[in-house]
Amino acid sequence: VHRQNLAELQRKLNELHPADVARILEALPFEERLTIWQLVKAERDGDILLEVSDAVRETLIADMDDHELLAAAKEMNADELADLAPELPRDVVHELMESLDGQQRERVRSALSYDSDQVGALMNFGMVTIREDVSLEVVLRYLRRLKELPGHTDKLFVVDYDGVLKGVLPIKRLLVNDPEKQVSDVMASDPVTFHPDEDAYEAAQAFERYDLVSSPVVDKNGKLIGRLTIDEIVDLIREESESEVLNMAGLREEEDIFASVWRSLRNRWAWLAINLVTAFAASRVIGLFGDAIERLVALAALMPIVAGIGGNSGNQTITMIVRAMALDQLGSGNTLRLLRKELGVSLINGLIWGGVIGVVAWLLYDSWKLGAVMVAAMTLNLLLAAFMGVLIPMTLAKLGKDPAMGASVMITAVTDSGGFLIFLGLATFFLMG
Amino acid sequence: VHRQNLAELQRKLNELHPADVARILEALPFEERLTIWQLVKAERDGDILLEVSDAVRETLIADMDDHELLAAAKEMNADELADLAPELPRDVVHELMESLDGQQRERVRSALSYDSDQVGALMNFGMVTIREDVSLEVVLRYLRRLKELPGHTDKLFVVDYDGVLKGVLPIKRLLVNDPEKQVSDVMASDPVTFHPDEDAYEAAQAFERYDLVSSPVVDKNGKLIGRLTIDEIVDLIREESESEVLNMAGLREEEDIFASVWRSLRNRWAWLAINLVTAFAASRVIGLFGDAIERLVALAALMPIVAGIGGNSGNQTITMIVRAMALDQLGSGNTLRLLRKELGVSLINGLIWGGVIGVVAWLLYDSWKLGAVMVAAMTLNLLLAAFMGVLIPMTLAKLGKDPAMGASVMITAVTDSGGFLIFLGLATFFLMG
Repeated sequence: VHRQNLAELQRKLNELHPADVARILEALPFEERLTIWQLVKAERDGDILLEVSDAVRETLIADMDDHELLAAAKEMNADELADLAPELPRDVVHELMESLDGQQRERVRSALSYDSDQVGALMNFGMVTIREDVSLEVVLRYLRRLKELPGHTDKLFVVDYDGVLKGVLPIKRLLVNDPEKQVSDVMASDPVTFHPDEDAYEAAQAFERYDLVSSPVVDKNGKLIGRLTIDEIVDLIREESESEVLNMAGLREEEDIFASVWRSLRNRWAWLAINLVTAFAASRVIGLFGDAIERLVALAALMPIVAGIGGNSGNQTITMIVRAMALDQLGSGNTLRLLRKELGVSLINGLIWGGVIGVVAWLLYDSWKLGAVMVAAMTLNLLLAAFMGVLIPMTLAKLGKDPAMGASVMITAVTDSGGFLIFLGLATFFLMG
Repeated sequence: VHRQNLAELQRKLNELHPADVARILEALPFEERLTIWQLVKAERDGDILLEVSDAVRETLIADMDDHELLAAAKEMNADELADLAPELPRDVVHELMESLDGQQRERVRSALSYDSDQVGALMNFGMVTIREDVSLEVVLRYLRRLKELPGHTDKLFVVDYDGVLKGVLPIKRLLVNDPEKQVSDVMASDPVTFHPDEDAYEAAQAFERYDLVSSPVVDKNGKLIGRLTIDEIVDLIREESESEVLNMAGLREEEDIFASVWRSLRNRWAWLAINLVTAFAASRVIGLFGDAIERLVALAALMPIVAGIGGNSGNQTITMIVRAMALDQLGSGNTLRLLRKELGVSLINGLIWGGVIGVVAWLLYDSWKLGAVMVAAMTLNLLLAAFMGVLIPMTLAKLGKDPAMGASVMITAVTDSGGFLIFLGLATFFLMG
């Protein structure tokens, strides 16, 4: 009966789109994932490997022998091979490269030579090129002879005999214009182009801004070498937002939800360890004021409020700034203005919420002085939170790091130690005198 | 000289793409923004209004009189009008609706009747429809007569005489097939379609999964009523990731970085107030153990470590879960498994990092018992963090809320109060005996 079910399952899997099979594999724990993977027809392995996330892909590749991997990779384009190559065993890659023709091998090499955040790593080679001195009728006949067009072909690339890009012919224009017209009369001669060493995220912003579907990539001599398409850009946008969220919490990018406990630990340790050090530092700050706390135990109860609100408010500021930086809205011209605004918000929040909690502290511990210290400490810690909330992501960016990198742990470290120091310091000075 | 500069600036602005003007407006503080806005040619107002974010759009609309608004809106399509209408003064909307023909008015009404997270609010009406019983040659001639095709037309929609969708004809197939062939022989008869009341985020996932550029929207009788295009989907994906990051920090969606202090305060108050209440609760927990702290002031110094690490670890868990939920990887089938994994990670983290800090506490305060309490408290609080980190987003989702909504404030509330209670409780029991 079990075998019958498997056969039925296999039949259903083979009817599904590769992306849907990938989605099923993503949502399954390790053993079940491999069971399903073995049911998938060998000729679909390649398509599915290209759809799954890196973390899941690794588990699937580890389950395949060299022969299966070679078979799966044989069907792929140069850009797809380049995507997969870094995760394949070395000898499989070697054998694959041997089997390619010169142009293909050159393309794979070139794609592999770029960082994953450069346009060159994202481009594909599914370009349809035409000459500018022919009529649209000739272009239409040429396309018919191709039998198939690459995905996301919304424009044809017009090149000269040296392969230099002269313009693009949007399919829309090809369709609505008189077939007698020349390509050069109809083409757009000043299209948006990219260079392979440009930042991929900036290319993604251009795609969003100008609503592009595909766009040519040219080298520094203007020679057409590839194209970007919106499907890769959408994946990039998705990944970018993912890593922003994860970085903020001090997580690395790759942990599928069914990763082993060991893998998860590795993913989370770095920032937890840093957090431990900062928490210990905050603890030592408190240790400095042991006498004050022994004399007025209310301080121990109130100090986490000062630290906690500071952390929360600092996280809000840092989130706003990281956002604005991701959207390219922050220049050196407006930093000061922004800092002033954040400090203003913190000042008002500190006076109002600090005031509320100050009155509560006064009534609760019957000391207006304690209440006043509370208001002052909360306001000062919120100002510190605003200041560091602007400074931390900007400094990280200046150092060439991701501005969201562990931002939450860092701001909390500052508002904890700072909050304790400010509150206990003020209390010692004004209440213990 | 100033006037000359403005004229120069105006000339440059009018050469820019509307999206670029929008980007400039976004990055400018309020007064400068309005100065630039007044320099923009009136006939470009509409295009630019459609490109800016909601928060900035509001400031621009507030600066325009009814006459200018009407002029800007006159150039728009039905779907663009529907995007803008909720922010326009009521009498302007009324006058606009009057000026539309029957079909257009119906389309605006229909688009306005959907929630912003439904497919119906996202669709546009730039559809090119054809019949299935004509040849490709006829289709090509028909397109030529249209003079212009709507943006993102990668497929034509094949409908019958009642407007029911029979299939789609990808432009790619139109171009490579013999013009003598019939549409019905070449079209894809089982395309991906959407319903107007479907969840827009699910449509976005389908666009990503199947690499779509455009897709028909049909009503429950299969009648074609509009289409979705990738440009709107990209905007949606961007907004979704934005609101996830902001929600996590307890921020509402709309605050452009130059929003006034007052506006920023409103955006941030709700969760700060909640945080104040939870911080006060944590403070009362500490208050319960005043005697213990008076007798052993080391407790006051160590307790924030327990709470802090718990908060950090809980935030990591919650971030993972929110991510997995956004990517649809969490079903009821694997919740338990996931919970077990998170608890496992926390147990090991607790024993190891708790052990480290326990040894430090032992050496520092010369009490192995205090060290042991520290290890136990950290482990228990990390387990609590893992448990609540899974439970909070899942409960929010079950209640129909955004699972990221203030997640950070909530998990910190639990790990603070819980951490203090566990640590001080254990210390009272084992050290004060």
